[in-house]
Amino acid sequence: MHEICGLPAGDREDSAARMQLDIVIIALGRNAEDPAWASVYPSIIDAAERDPEIAALQAGLHKAFMPPFHAAVEQAKDRGEVQPEKSAAEVTAAVVGPLFYRRWFSKEAIDDRFIENTIDGAVKAALGR
Amino acid sequence: MHEICGLPAGDREDSAARMQLDIVIIALGRNAEDPAWASVYPSIIDAAERDPEIAALQAGLHKAFMPPFHAAVEQAKDRGEVQPEKSAAEVTAAVVGPLFYRRWFSKEAIDDRFIENTIDGAVKAALGR
Repeated sequence: MHEICGLPAGDREDSAARMQLDIVIIALGRNAEDPAWASVYPSIIDAAERDPEIAALQAGLHKAFMPPFHAAVEQAKDRGEVQPEKSAAEVTAAVVGPLFYRRWFSKEAIDDRFIENTIDGAVKAALGR
Repeated sequence: MHEICGLPAGDREDSAARMQLDIVIIALGRNAEDPAWASVYPSIIDAAERDPEIAALQAGLHKAFMPPFHAAVEQAKDRGEVQPEKSAAEVTAAVVGPLFYRRWFSKEAIDDRFIENTIDGAVKAALGR
């Protein structure tokens, strides 16, 4: 699926933060394309609305797959690429939210262009550019 | 919940596009805070993964609540506030995705600050600022 860059490096605002987000989004994209994971996860979300034990299970699953995003943002802060006051959770929501929205709500295509534009927008907002 | 502006107008990059998105996000926020709607929607999403009739129902529900977002973006294009090549569907995903992600996946707070920052980021990306 998503290839890092897609355009020659010189045509893009590349940064280590952007490249790290590219890498973690590839992993997430593979999960979202896995028919088993993608069709089971809504059952968990649904049950979590009513059952506290399933809610705890879902919170655990969520916690398990978010650290790479938070790490990418925190390391970008250490390098001065992301403003220190930016919340890693907010940058993560800006990158991951649109993908989840397309997969389970709008069911529109998650193609390379969409992924590029989503990361571009989130990185621009995080960098304050 | 979310108040339009929250900051004096002079402190923000206000535009008609931004204000229109503020207004439609208030309506969405009210829906997402409605316990009936917010806890039933995941059941529909879940069933839609397996049942084509429910999938058609969900596609219909989704179609019914997206037009205000698309209209806001298209009108912003007409006013020259959003680049003509920007896809209304992508701007919508950038605004709505993070909210849906917080409500059903991360379960973090959807507070005024988060809504402000999400719309700011999406509008900045759409305006190319």
